[in-house]
Amino acid sequence: MSGHVIALCGGVGGAKLAFGLTRILPPEDLTILVNTGDDFEHLGLHVSPDIDTVAYTLSGLSDRERGWGLAGETWNFMAALKRLGGEAWFNLGDHDLAMHVERTRGLAAGESLSHVTTALTAALGIRHPVIPMSDQPVRTIIQTADGELGFQRYFVGEQCRPVATGVRFEGAASARPSAGFQTALARRDLAAVIVCPSNPYLSIDPILATPGVRKALADLATPIVAVSPIIGGQALKGPAAKLMAELGVTPGVLAVARHYGGLLDGLVIDTADRDDAAALRAFSLEPLVTDSVMHTDDDRVRLARETLAFAAELAWPVQTRRAAL
Amino acid sequence: MSGHVIALCGGVGGAKLAFGLTRILPPEDLTILVNTGDDFEHLGLHVSPDIDTVAYTLSGLSDRERGWGLAGETWNFMAALKRLGGEAWFNLGDHDLAMHVERTRGLAAGESLSHVTTALTAALGIRHPVIPMSDQPVRTIIQTADGELGFQRYFVGEQCRPVATGVRFEGAASARPSAGFQTALARRDLAAVIVCPSNPYLSIDPILATPGVRKALADLATPIVAVSPIIGGQALKGPAAKLMAELGVTPGVLAVARHYGGLLDGLVIDTADRDDAAALRAFSLEPLVTDSVMHTDDDRVRLARETLAFAAELAWPVQTRRAAL
Repeated sequence: MSGHVIALCGGVGGAKLAFGLTRILPPEDLTILVNTGDDFEHLGLHVSPDIDTVAYTLSGLSDRERGWGLAGETWNFMAALKRLGGEAWFNLGDHDLAMHVERTRGLAAGESLSHVTTALTAALGIRHPVIPMSDQPVRTIIQTADGELGFQRYFVGEQCRPVATGVRFEGAASARPSAGFQTALARRDLAAVIVCPSNPYLSIDPILATPGVRKALADLATPIVAVSPIIGGQALKGPAAKLMAELGVTPGVLAVARHYGGLLDGLVIDTADRDDAAALRAFSLEPLVTDSVMHTDDDRVRLARETLAFAAELAWPVQTRRAAL
Repeated sequence: MSGHVIALCGGVGGAKLAFGLTRILPPEDLTILVNTGDDFEHLGLHVSPDIDTVAYTLSGLSDRERGWGLAGETWNFMAALKRLGGEAWFNLGDHDLAMHVERTRGLAAGESLSHVTTALTAALGIRHPVIPMSDQPVRTIIQTADGELGFQRYFVGEQCRPVATGVRFEGAASARPSAGFQTALARRDLAAVIVCPSNPYLSIDPILATPGVRKALADLATPIVAVSPIIGGQALKGPAAKLMAELGVTPGVLAVARHYGGLLDGLVIDTADRDDAAALRAFSLEPLVTDSVMHTDDDRVRLARETLAFAAELAWPVQTRRAAL
């Protein structure tokens, strides 16, 4: 594939595919666009969990066994904070803390989240652009029968136990896509948009909720291909399947396809879901069936390569179809 | 001695005597009044070095070999901050950081520095009141031939190398003594004020610069006794002697006495300075000659006990003299 690629990305699963993409595409051909709906202010610090997960994954610093945070992390700050009676429900590692302190310092000095993110990722040796979806605050709120919960309260504090009745994105209506996002969307050489295997409701929807983004994507004459985060009716990580069930949707690749509506041109699904391929085609969605679980770096690169090739195959039909509209 | 004691205190040396006082006096009989002129905003965090030194010393958590900070401290946050290109000239340990984050969080939530300090010291198991001199910001500024330096820039960043031409206390004119300080000064059972062996120019002067404090102290009918931080013309720690020389004063106990003017009733000096005792008396200042270097906890308690006994001896002459004014 030649041309520019935008990868829409949430946390752990999405970051793995983004890692694969960075091993194939040079920095000038890739924009990694990251959800900031999970961001929150904690202990006076601006925490951007998805940006940090992407940064740690791309730089090779992430803890692959624990699945989040930094390898070799220590927790002495948390121990001291607990001794002081501070809020200890959200773990901040000693190394990780430097990201939050530096980010908060930059934002307080009037820098944009995009600017701060560029500086922090560059310092970690990341050459590909990592761009927040928006420089304005958008906050994912989980609606439950017992009231609303901020995303991290739901995800970390309550371990996703409360039954969700809905999701909303506070601040989205007055947010704008970040300048880097707008620039990438407007590139004449844009060749594909890859929706990484991140939670559709909690990681990708905040990106789509930013005014103008959904329409800009729908108007593109380039293929939009998602990698399903749901395999065999289950999410590899996180509450996607639980959330879908609570919202009255049977978790599966068909539900993912339906959720994204007509936005996608192709959906990469795991071999475990091969029986759903025909139903996806009936939904006007081209499926690619492959091994989509990424255990190793090689898995990440292979899945990224297959996804890019799949998008390239769809380029001509997509252009033809859009031109006919 | 019966009645209440106020200890005016800076960092390391002062904290050692304060520790001794807490081992003799019950919490209701002691107010430890701490300099906040060293406070500064760093990386968006409110750092109160003298309060923390006092807190760590009183709680037994301080690193006695290094002379500052916490025993068993780790520096992983600093390593990560350096990797990110953050400001690394001021070392913040991983455990220590919890104090600054909690303090900053409390202040941002509208709590006073006094309130935050009470909560933090209580969490560390300290039963004696540790009170900041003021809840308003007062910042010690070192004047040099090459311009002005904030205290920590001078003390830590420049390792006290610049030649000082003067010291000023930014914000002092509009600051008020903290409520806890005012209450302690107004106590009818006030029996003594102890000026701990802290830097007169940098640790005690900021306290005295707060409007009303010097007069309130001068009006007291109770003895005010200082322990000299200068022994044999040298400071045990810190830049006191260097600063005195730069300001045109020969470092020594006589210079300390002169610096405090008529404020003191007694001065505790080391046996190394016994030859200056007569000159102090000529200065209307009663000397107590003793071993004033505090190596061990026993040294701290003994010096505190001797200082309290010395103040008690001075109570009657002071009352008589003040009544005659």
